[in-house]
Amino acid sequence: MQSLHFTSEASSNGVIERDFTLGEVPGVLWSPASRPARTPLVLMGHGGGLHKRTPALVARAHHFATTCGFSVVAIDAPAHGERPRTAQDDQATADFRQAMAAGEPIGPIVVRYTLPLVERAVPEWQATIDALQELPEIGDGPIGYGGGVTMGTAIGIPLTAAEPRITAALFGGGFFVHEGLIEAARQITVPVQFLLQWDEEHVERESTLALYDAFASKEKTLHANRGGHADVPAFETDDAARFLLRHLAG
Amino acid sequence: MQSLHFTSEASSNGVIERDFTLGEVPGVLWSPASRPARTPLVLMGHGGGLHKRTPALVARAHHFATTCGFSVVAIDAPAHGERPRTAQDDQATADFRQAMAAGEPIGPIVVRYTLPLVERAVPEWQATIDALQELPEIGDGPIGYGGGVTMGTAIGIPLTAAEPRITAALFGGGFFVHEGLIEAARQITVPVQFLLQWDEEHVERESTLALYDAFASKEKTLHANRGGHADVPAFETDDAARFLLRHLAG
Repeated sequence: MQSLHFTSEASSNGVIERDFTLGEVPGVLWSPASRPARTPLVLMGHGGGLHKRTPALVARAHHFATTCGFSVVAIDAPAHGERPRTAQDDQATADFRQAMAAGEPIGPIVVRYTLPLVERAVPEWQATIDALQELPEIGDGPIGYGGGVTMGTAIGIPLTAAEPRITAALFGGGFFVHEGLIEAARQITVPVQFLLQWDEEHVERESTLALYDAFASKEKTLHANRGGHADVPAFETDDAARFLLRHLAG
Repeated sequence: MQSLHFTSEASSNGVIERDFTLGEVPGVLWSPASRPARTPLVLMGHGGGLHKRTPALVARAHHFATTCGFSVVAIDAPAHGERPRTAQDDQATADFRQAMAAGEPIGPIVVRYTLPLVERAVPEWQATIDALQELPEIGDGPIGYGGGVTMGTAIGIPLTAAEPRITAALFGGGFFVHEGLIEAARQITVPVQFLLQWDEEHVERESTLALYDAFASKEKTLHANRGGHADVPAFETDDAARFLLRHLAG
C-alpha cells in the first residue's frame, strides 16, 4: 500500500488543513481541530477543469468540518490542478473550446475525454481511502461521497458503485449522461441525494432525471432548483450537511 | 367580516389546540403555549377524502408549533370532515370507487368533482385569514401555506395565486394536473418547495414535473423521493419546517 505524506499543515476557524501526496496524487485533508478518533470522512469531488482547492469546494469542506465535525478530503483528478497534462489533454480542451464557440454539441467530446480520467480516478480514490484509514482520526469510521457536480459526479457514481466503504452519497447534474453512468447508478444501493439545476444549460434535463431514476437506492432524494449551472442556492449546502449527518453520524 | 368562535381549548406538549367555527366552516388552531404576538401562521391543507384532524396533519402541526414556534391552522374543506355532504358528493364518491375498481382513469372524475370545491375553499381560507388576523398572537405576522398533497395542493395553488398575504408555500404532487392548475402556478412568484413521490401511483410523473416547471417563483425547489403516495420519508417534515423557518421567521 502506498503511504500518505503530509507536506504542510495550517489551521483556521477550528479546522486543520493538511496538504498531502499519495504517490503522484496531491490532496488536502480538512479535519476538526479537536481531532477525535473515527470521525466520519467525506470525499469531495471537483468539477471538470477545476481542482481540489476550488473556492466553493473549500467553503463546503469547512462547513462540513465545523458544522458536522467531519473530516473532508479532496484530491486533484488526473490532468487537473497540480497534476501533469498531456498533449492529448490539451487537444481535448482545444476541441471543447472550439465546439463551444461553434455552438456544436459538447457532450460527446466531454464524455470521450472524461471516461479515461474516470477510470484512473476511481482506483486513486480507493488508494486515498486505504491510506487515510491508517490515521487514527479516520480509522474505520463511516465514509460518504460529498458531491461535486459535473465531473465530480461522473467520478463519484462509478466510485460509489465500486466501493462498499461509501455508505451515503451526494451527487449532482451537469454531466452528460452516458450509458456507462446509468449502468453504474443501477448498482448503487446506498442513500443518495441528487442535486439538479432545473435550467442547466448544457445537459438535457430528461437525461439527468433518467440518471436519478436509475439508482437502485431505497432512499434517493432529488433536489431540483430553478436556475442554471452556477445558480445552486446557498441553502443546499445546509441540506447536504444534514443528509450526511443523518447517514454518517450514527 | 365573519368572526371566529372558539368552541374548545386543550393543551399538550407546549401546544394550545383550539377548535373554532367561522360561519359554517370548522377549524383547528394550534399555537405555542407561550402565545407570543405576531407568530408566523401556517395554513395546512388536507388531502381529498380526509379532514382537518388527519393524524399526519396533526403531527406536522405540532412539529411546526414546537420546533418553529408557528401558529398552525387547518379547516375542513367543503364536503369533508364535519361538513355536510350533498347527494352530488355521494355520487362523486361512488363514481370514483367504481372507476378505481374497474381500473379506469380516475383523473377526470377527481378534477371534475374537486374544481367546485376548490372554488368554495379559496374564499373560505381568505375569510379564515381575515378572522385570525384579529387575534393578537397572529396579527399581521407572516403567513405560509404549509402543504397538503393531493387536494391540499389543488386548493393551495389557486389560494396562493390569489392571496398576497401568503409569502411562501409548500405544495406536493398526487393531484391530477389540469390546465387551470398550471395557469394558477404561473401566477405564483413567492418561494415554493414542492414534494413529489417519484413512483406516485395515480398521477403521471411528467404532468407533476410540468406543474413544478410552471411556477414563476425565483426560488422553487423540487424534492422528489422514491416510493408511492404513502412513502414520504420522515425527514421531509424537517425539510418543510426549515423551508418555512427560512421564509417566515425573519
